[in-house]
Amino acid sequence: MTEQIEKRRPRVVIVGAGFGGVKVAQLLDGAAVDVTVVDRNNFHLFQPLLYQLSTSEIDENEIAYPIRAFFRNSRNVNFFMATAEDFDPYRKLLKTDRGDVPYDYLVLAVGATTNFFGMESIAKNAFGMKTLQESIAIRNHVLRMCEMASACDDEEERRKMLTFVCVGGGPTGVECAGALSELIYGVIAHEYHNIDISEAKVVLIEAIDRLLAMMPRDLSEETARVLRDVRKVDVRLNTACKDYDGEYLTFKEGEPLPTRTVIWAAGVKAVSLMTRLGVERDRSERVKVTPTLQVGDFPEIFAIGDCACFIPGEGERPLPTVAPVATQQAVVCAENIKKLVAGNQNLTSFAYKDMGSMATICRGHAVVAMGSIKMSGFLAWVAWLFVHLLRLDGGYTNMTVLYKWFWNFLFGLRLGRVITDTEMKD
Amino acid sequence: MTEQIEKRRPRVVIVGAGFGGVKVAQLLDGAAVDVTVVDRNNFHLFQPLLYQLSTSEIDENEIAYPIRAFFRNSRNVNFFMATAEDFDPYRKLLKTDRGDVPYDYLVLAVGATTNFFGMESIAKNAFGMKTLQESIAIRNHVLRMCEMASACDDEEERRKMLTFVCVGGGPTGVECAGALSELIYGVIAHEYHNIDISEAKVVLIEAIDRLLAMMPRDLSEETARVLRDVRKVDVRLNTACKDYDGEYLTFKEGEPLPTRTVIWAAGVKAVSLMTRLGVERDRSERVKVTPTLQVGDFPEIFAIGDCACFIPGEGERPLPTVAPVATQQAVVCAENIKKLVAGNQNLTSFAYKDMGSMATICRGHAVVAMGSIKMSGFLAWVAWLFVHLLRLDGGYTNMTVLYKWFWNFLFGLRLGRVITDTEMKD
Repeated sequence: MTEQIEKRRPRVVIVGAGFGGVKVAQLLDGAAVDVTVVDRNNFHLFQPLLYQLSTSEIDENEIAYPIRAFFRNSRNVNFFMATAEDFDPYRKLLKTDRGDVPYDYLVLAVGATTNFFGMESIAKNAFGMKTLQESIAIRNHVLRMCEMASACDDEEERRKMLTFVCVGGGPTGVECAGALSELIYGVIAHEYHNIDISEAKVVLIEAIDRLLAMMPRDLSEETARVLRDVRKVDVRLNTACKDYDGEYLTFKEGEPLPTRTVIWAAGVKAVSLMTRLGVERDRSERVKVTPTLQVGDFPEIFAIGDCACFIPGEGERPLPTVAPVATQQAVVCAENIKKLVAGNQNLTSFAYKDMGSMATICRGHAVVAMGSIKMSGFLAWVAWLFVHLLRLDGGYTNMTVLYKWFWNFLFGLRLGRVITDTEMKD
Repeated sequence: MTEQIEKRRPRVVIVGAGFGGVKVAQLLDGAAVDVTVVDRNNFHLFQPLLYQLSTSEIDENEIAYPIRAFFRNSRNVNFFMATAEDFDPYRKLLKTDRGDVPYDYLVLAVGATTNFFGMESIAKNAFGMKTLQESIAIRNHVLRMCEMASACDDEEERRKMLTFVCVGGGPTGVECAGALSELIYGVIAHEYHNIDISEAKVVLIEAIDRLLAMMPRDLSEETARVLRDVRKVDVRLNTACKDYDGEYLTFKEGEPLPTRTVIWAAGVKAVSLMTRLGVERDRSERVKVTPTLQVGDFPEIFAIGDCACFIPGEGERPLPTVAPVATQQAVVCAENIKKLVAGNQNLTSFAYKDMGSMATICRGHAVVAMGSIKMSGFLAWVAWLFVHLLRLDGGYTNMTVLYKWFWNFLFGLRLGRVITDTEMKD
């Protein structure tokens, strides 16, 4: 290390305040380093519940938690609100829209964005659902479609407005379709006296032959059955999308589907920042990391979570882009940074402990697969509920969310139905 | 009435879903009329707590309540989301951006907007605080100023960013200044490790010689004292604003005040729609109404609340623009419409029952004046709290708000600190 660095505490810069980034910073609280968390937003986002914001069940503030609140008592952790744009890894600078940030250690925890797989018309006209702003936009759009339909004389146009399509049979698509169905049949049907609810439809589209591909096949089938029978969702498997012009969604085969709303939850890729580092990446633009979570060419740069491609063993598939990978990697990342700072080069290798997976289908119904345990139905939903409640941040947020879920469960209440942008296009 | 009208139920169109408009529609629920509520937003807004949204204490959804939820079981009440733009009172049409709405009876309950008294530079660079969108913009701006200040090397610029000015010594200005002070000294001081909080300042400006002019003078003085001594607010009386360029607020007399944030709560006027009716208005653009709340030239048009000028008696001052006037007028308005529909021309005259006034200064401190009762301090604050909680809509909203106030009171927590627009200008 240079003379300059010896005189001051090492600077750790963490890019991204998601599950991974916040955890690394928390674990470095009180260590002999100066930590700067960089994020373009001033909040940490609880992404697993974004779909509930999109469907008016909960509020922004229940899943978006001010980053600074995590570090109120961490004197060595600072926050810098800026958009990371590029790197100068040789001069050890992170380049942002608000100036350069020098680092001794850099942690990339920037997460993922929606992958439209190069389909431009879909990227342009469909909604992604990875950010708070996108979810608010979906909420506003869905409610606006209902308002427009309630005063529209043309049946064909009305049906387009009242057809809501989710693409992608993973947890996000399944949860979103179930929640949209609850919104339509539980709320819209009762409050829009002018709407004939038989004109409304929720469609879930999946390219392969099953939903929730990470689950055992019987739970996948149970999920499709509940969505179809209980929630009236039109589940279409083996259906690949081709184009979407804002009015008609077309497929590789079959009739186009008239709809004004397509929510795209069919894939993610690392955010574009990761392409700027000039190192090896996988198909999803994730940078490949060593067993110790470092970026090959730059041992002072770590990458964790959705933006990192970690291959557990020779010939194995990379770890999935889920929160537990990010939080578990954060622990090893923080440990290794502390070792390096202490001059210890004997770094810890990461080993993923799979906690299983769960997805909620609708109110009172979920599927859970953990090792040999498989559950579906109400008990699985209660398990889902508590796992998510306990993981929510903010001391009291879990109480307001529990309270809202309770009312929603009993009475189907959804009070988040507020259109916050004023524009009304038709 | 024409033949056409005899064949169908009379159409009552209510413009504006504030306190007055919603109440009229509720009172016409089940009556032999078809009611259409027209509003450019899909929500009813609890304006008295807007300042708490601006200062991150509560969420959008706690003060914005979906209009349709009020009328879930009111089959004769419909909602039409549109912006009213003009009238054709001779053909009995309300003109909106989404088409004409025919009426037999029209209720104007469109409310008020910010009055900048023709000062263009202030209108352009200061924030109004009458709408949900304006309050969200204030919240985002205040938090962004703190983020910018925390990474700014220029002391003069930093002080500009950390000086927050409220103009107007009425309840809104007083409450906003108190809440801003709590945000600055209770939250910002603890979470922005880079900010020297002695550089921050909250200023309250009032043109006349006292705050809360509708209160007894001793309560006005108590309010100024608490703001100054307890909340460190720089209260400046007898100070009239002249210009604001976004960086310096100038006055009729004295030094300019460097600040990047001016919240203007110094006056209201009826929304501009009221000028389109071509009838007599007062200085605040409110239309003059008869004792029975009708607009002189058009007996089928009623006006209530902030957009109506009601003079209780010869030579008396018009009623103030406060919620109780709107809700009390709504009762008489609905009654008179029912009478007219029934062919009874013997309409009821409106008489205002003054319920007194209250304002909160900060956590644990309010002032209340009701007839001969005067209160200030903690008990007044508890009274303020319950009056506002009971008036909140939404069944369970008051519980989440009470819960948040409780936590805020005990721990100074404010979790609404989320910047929802991504733009970061500096």
